[in-house]
Parts: sequence; C-alpha cells; structure tokens
Amino acid sequence: MSQREPHTAAILLIGDEILSGRTQDLNLAYISKKLNDVGVQVREARVVPDIESEIVAAVNALRARYAYVFTTGGIGPTHDDITADSIAAAFGMKCDFHPEAYAMMEANYPPGEFTEARKRMARTPVGAALIPNPVSKAPGFRVENVFVMAGIPRVMHVMLEGALPLLEGGRPVLSRSVGVHMPEGRFGTALGELQGRFPDIGIGSYPFLREGRYGASLVMRGTDRARVDAAAVAVHAMLAELGGDPFDETA
Amino acid sequence: MSQREPHTAAILLIGDEILSGRTQDLNLAYISKKLNDVGVQVREARVVPDIESEIVAAVNALRARYAYVFTTGGIGPTHDDITADSIAAAFGMKCDFHPEAYAMMEANYPPGEFTEARKRMARTPVGAALIPNPVSKAPGFRVENVFVMAGIPRVMHVMLEGALPLLEGGRPVLSRSVGVHMPEGRFGTALGELQGRFPDIGIGSYPFLREGRYGASLVMRGTDRARVDAAAVAVHAMLAELGGDPFDETA
Repeated sequence: MSQREPHTAAILLIGDEILSGRTQDLNLAYISKKLNDVGVQVREARVVPDIESEIVAAVNALRARYAYVFTTGGIGPTHDDITADSIAAAFGMKCDFHPEAYAMMEANYPPGEFTEARKRMARTPVGAALIPNPVSKAPGFRVENVFVMAGIPRVMHVMLEGALPLLEGGRPVLSRSVGVHMPEGRFGTALGELQGRFPDIGIGSYPFLREGRYGASLVMRGTDRARVDAAAVAVHAMLAELGGDPFDETA
Repeated sequence: MSQREPHTAAILLIGDEILSGRTQDLNLAYISKKLNDVGVQVREARVVPDIESEIVAAVNALRARYAYVFTTGGIGPTHDDITADSIAAAFGMKCDFHPEAYAMMEANYPPGEFTEARKRMARTPVGAALIPNPVSKAPGFRVENVFVMAGIPRVMHVMLEGALPLLEGGRPVLSRSVGVHMPEGRFGTALGELQGRFPDIGIGSYPFLREGRYGASLVMRGTDRARVDAAAVAVHAMLAELGGDPFDETA
C-alpha cells in the first residue's frame, strides 16, 4: 500500500475487440485528461483480452503500484463480460448480486424484462461500492482503489464523473505548446540543452505534417504556471534564434 | 524462450503524449489488423511514458512471453526520444551509431544538415538489424523478437510493411459479424449457450447506438472458415427465434 505513488493512476482497457483492432479505443485519452483536471496523472495503461487470468494479473500489478486503477469494458450482460468475476478473483472476494444494484435494476425494467442476462450486470465483488450510471442504469463499481467502468464511451463518461469527486489529487499538470515549421533535427540539440535548464518541466517534441508543411509542437508540462511560462518563453527565443517561426498553440 | 506462445505478439506504445491524452493513438488497431493478416495475434498492449526503467521493464516482460513485440515511438532526434537506449538496456547491450544507418542518413542530408540531433537517429543497440524507412530515411530496428518502429503513423506503416515478411505466422483469424437491433439483455443467455456449443469459436457481443437505434454486433472469430460460418448461421437463427432482425455486417 505505502509504495503507491500518490496522485497517480493506471488505465486497464479490457476487451478482445480492442486488441484485434475491431474497436478503436477512445477511452484512454478521455480518462487521462479528466484525471489530470483533478490532479491525478496516468502513468501506465494496459490492454488485455477477455481472459480472467490476464485481467487478474494486470489488475493486481497495477493496483499495487498506482494510487488508482480505472478499468473499462466487460461489465455487460453477455457471456464475454467477465470483468466483475475477474476483479473479485483479483481481490480474493466472492462475486454475487449486489442488493442495491439488483433492486435498482429490477425496478428499472418492465415485468419479465429483467432477464437472467441483465441480472448478470447486478453482480459485483461482495461489498463493492456502486458507481452510478444515469445513462443505462447498470452500475459500475469500486473495490478499494480500483474503479470498474463500462467500455461504451457515453456510459463510461458518466461513471467517471461520479468517480472523480472521490479521488485525492495533487496539482494538475499545466501545459503550453509552441509550434514551429522547422524539422526536429534542426533544434533537437538546443532543445535538449534547454531541457537541462528546466529540470522541473517536462519538455516533449512532437513532429507534425499540416497542410503540407512539416513542423513540430514543443510541449512544456509542469505544475508551476510561472515555470511552465518561463520554459515556453525560452523555447520561443531558442527557435527564433535558429531562424524559426515559433507560434503559440492550444496545449 | 520456449515459453513464448507461437504466432503471438504484444504492442508497446511509448510516449508521455499518449498517456496524457494529448495524442490519440491510432497505431494499436492498425498494427493488430496487419499482424492478423499474416497469422499473428496481438494478445496484450501497454502504454508507458518516456522513462527508461519503465520501457525496459515492459519490453522484458513482453518479449519473454510473446513471439513478437512491436514498439512505436521515441526514435526521433530530440532529448525525449530514448527508445534506442532503453531497448539496448533491456537486452544488456551497448547503444551506438549503426554504421549502415549512419552512412545512409549522412548521404541523405545536404552538407552541414546532418546535425548532432539527427545523428541520434542513427543509434541502435549494437548489432541490431535495421528496418527500412522509405518515408523519412531514419530507420527502425530489430533486436531478436523486438521490432522498434516510429510513432508517426505514416512512418510506422512503411516500417511495419518491412517487418511483416520476417514473421512466422499461423492461420489468420477469420471473423463474421451479425448485427441485430435488440438489446443484449434479451439474447445474452441464449448467446452464452450458443458459445458453449462452439468452444473453438470466440463469440463477442458489442452493443452500439446507430442513427438513434440501439443494437449489438455479434462477432464470431476463429481460424476455420466452415466453423465460423456455422456459428454465424446459428447466431442468425437464435436471434430470429427471439424475434430479432439479424443482418450480416462487414466483420
């Protein structure tokens, strides 16, 4: 427990359809940005198939190391939805109907429509706390520092909104981005020296091709607004000195 | 070595920009599909930051377990491009200029333009095999079963084309997809029973919302065309019996 880095998180995407390329994941980037807004930094992500032993191994590796783990996928009503059982197995808990979830879902369906398949969605590790789902009722859940959410983006989004207030965050990472139409190979060495002068600021360089023109976005990231700004000013000056055309971008 | 599952692969995405949500990854799905075409199945993916110890740990975990590992990102000319050094560290090798890469890149730039930063892109673990880059010259490389590629999609694509003929694949996974405008909760139990009758076929159910209508895609995956087709026929029949409107989709 004490080895977990505070204000950090990992994301675990569960599902064959992401690994096969059938489904383009959009959840990782969304969750990362929302977590950063409350001062929690995503440090690692993994994608695993719908196999219990794989889910268990990944959850146990990640929950031991990071303050929070967020999973998406595998909590629907079909046979390939095995996340609840897998999370229970990871914690050595039983998986059973959650009384509150069961009652809430039963009340949500017309008589005869609360099928055996739908009842599966009321199962959680015993004692789990529910994460509300205003969109389609079937809730997510939380066990200790692991938050289990749906894979469908619009359902995941509302579950994440419910989870965010529960997190203990630090200072959000602030960023500035400076663009330039110059190949990285021209400013790489100077940028490396500049990074040395700003050890508290993470500086990344991301090449782009826009409207037929090559260039790069230089992104400064840190928790101190004044230092991030100072690094951006220094990057501007460095690029101008090399004959470039630095311009501010939305970070 | 002998514990590696044949015809399997893992993908390792390297870069702070993916974890922060700044960059939407598109490489995982692309690589997965291309690998499946040659009979190699992606079983796991990870995303790690630009930190050497993290890259080393992930590469060593994945290369011990899967037949192949494909990395993307971190092989550019700036200070945050540390993949070559990290792969060398993972294998306990030195990282230095690759003679062939250096000569090829030197010949590619006008006099004075082969900068110190660009020379960084000619560094590989000593003895690595190069992966050609017809788009922007700076090559990827291979060490044993680990293929190191660029993060920029159009550059990664040509590197992957060069790597694919080197792989020993099995039978590609074939798939069929059957759509239906029916909630999963109505057919979930029947689908689970059907899965039991086709243990050699992986059946997944993926809910959708299209043009205001809810439904699900049921995807059958396997290496035997006749069995995949038989499962699709059975799924059609099951859905029709439940009053649904099953239709074939492009899988």
